[in-house]
Amino acid sequence: MPSSAPIGIFDSGVGGLTVVRSMRHQLPKESILYLGDTARVPYGTKSPQVVERYALKCAQFLCNQGAKAIIIACNTASAVAVESVRAHFQVPVLGVIQPGAEAACQQSATGRIGVIGTQGTIESGSYQKAIVALRPDATLFTKACPLFVPLAEEGLHQHPASRLLAEEYLRPLCEQQIDTLVLGCTHYPLLQALIEDIVGPDVTVVDSASSVAQAAQQMLQDASMESAGPTGSHRFFSTDTPTRFIQVGQAFLGDSVEQVEVVDL
Amino acid sequence: MPSSAPIGIFDSGVGGLTVVRSMRHQLPKESILYLGDTARVPYGTKSPQVVERYALKCAQFLCNQGAKAIIIACNTASAVAVESVRAHFQVPVLGVIQPGAEAACQQSATGRIGVIGTQGTIESGSYQKAIVALRPDATLFTKACPLFVPLAEEGLHQHPASRLLAEEYLRPLCEQQIDTLVLGCTHYPLLQALIEDIVGPDVTVVDSASSVAQAAQQMLQDASMESAGPTGSHRFFSTDTPTRFIQVGQAFLGDSVEQVEVVDL
Repeated sequence: MPSSAPIGIFDSGVGGLTVVRSMRHQLPKESILYLGDTARVPYGTKSPQVVERYALKCAQFLCNQGAKAIIIACNTASAVAVESVRAHFQVPVLGVIQPGAEAACQQSATGRIGVIGTQGTIESGSYQKAIVALRPDATLFTKACPLFVPLAEEGLHQHPASRLLAEEYLRPLCEQQIDTLVLGCTHYPLLQALIEDIVGPDVTVVDSASSVAQAAQQMLQDASMESAGPTGSHRFFSTDTPTRFIQVGQAFLGDSVEQVEVVDL
Repeated sequence: MPSSAPIGIFDSGVGGLTVVRSMRHQLPKESILYLGDTARVPYGTKSPQVVERYALKCAQFLCNQGAKAIIIACNTASAVAVESVRAHFQVPVLGVIQPGAEAACQQSATGRIGVIGTQGTIESGSYQKAIVALRPDATLFTKACPLFVPLAEEGLHQHPASRLLAEEYLRPLCEQQIDTLVLGCTHYPLLQALIEDIVGPDVTVVDSASSVAQAAQQMLQDASMESAGPTGSHRFFSTDTPTRFIQVGQAFLGDSVEQVEVVDL
């Protein structure tokens, strides 16, 4: 596998573009293949078995396209399928949970850590396990925030309805006096300003999307697979027609999504 | 095909259980097979091509199970796939758009009719075409309400955030002085009290879910396929594990969902 080969990144939809944004910024020499499984989005309310099946299909597609490594840029799929994807493919595989957990453990002074995510991610207990393994003194407080994905996708980042729901979701965590809050869903960085406003300045918000780019750099170094450059190229794929991907994706990528190729998995 | 054979009803998820509720009430002698395509829910934000592909798979499954007729209890799938399902299968096929459009035309005095639904349903223009075909003097006002599905699924039927969003969605329709509003999504009857409260007593709210049961009765009469009774039996299928189906479905069915069989389409 040449080190100039692309990194394959997938997510249920457009949320993982926040990971692509961080990767572009931190690893500009790397080429990226991004797959959004928009025909089957969202994963967050689906069962572990179904999400695992979809994740394997996405990883297979990216490997067939010549990916030198796989990043699962979806917390739900990372929570339930990272081991399975590792077992099925020979390339290095990175999920978003472990980097997010590491960043939270580094940031937290008191060890009182909050985690928010989809129902699937929270119920899997993956962040809880990863954090406690790194820092046995940590006390975890979790909350599923099922409306955050549709609110982010609809662009209601500062809407009064988003604020009402966010206050309701986050209040129990604030009452527990957390000092660190993990955004355990790649959609949530779009609501970050609102979330930070509600939890206040004493709580550090950790975005797993930006933690993963650093972990990816380490993974590539360990495997001697870093691209020598110059600047990487980027290709985008989706499983549904790209109209909505292009329309909604821009806010997540922080740049316009120009061309999306449709694939049938 | 014996007239005692079941009617096959499918939807992307639990929303179509509002149609099952109406069918049970109005056609108690009919047996029902209900399929919720929960592994691929929602359809409302997906492209017509993908929704059509999924709809054909659902209909095929129900025909294989011996359904004597198919009801597409999903507005999005009805909007884009009813003709295709009719062309592929020999049994009578009924969507929810036509019965909803007929009910709206009967109810409206002024012909100023509002339609709300998912992005897919509204963009298809199906209600607009069906209503204008029945009543050329009608003036249509439509609005996609993408947050209503997750709000209904999360049980936030009277939540202040739901009210804020509903006011925003419905205000432009109210300003157009509609006298009739079609709930063009099988999830929306759960928000009916809130919607009626916002549009006020001068607007008649038409629920396509209850219109369809009457149309189904007519369809069975025309085909001489009415069940002679006694009371029909009901089987529920889902494409994802049934935990969430059972949990969320009760509010839609108005009764507990006791047993759900999982199928892989």
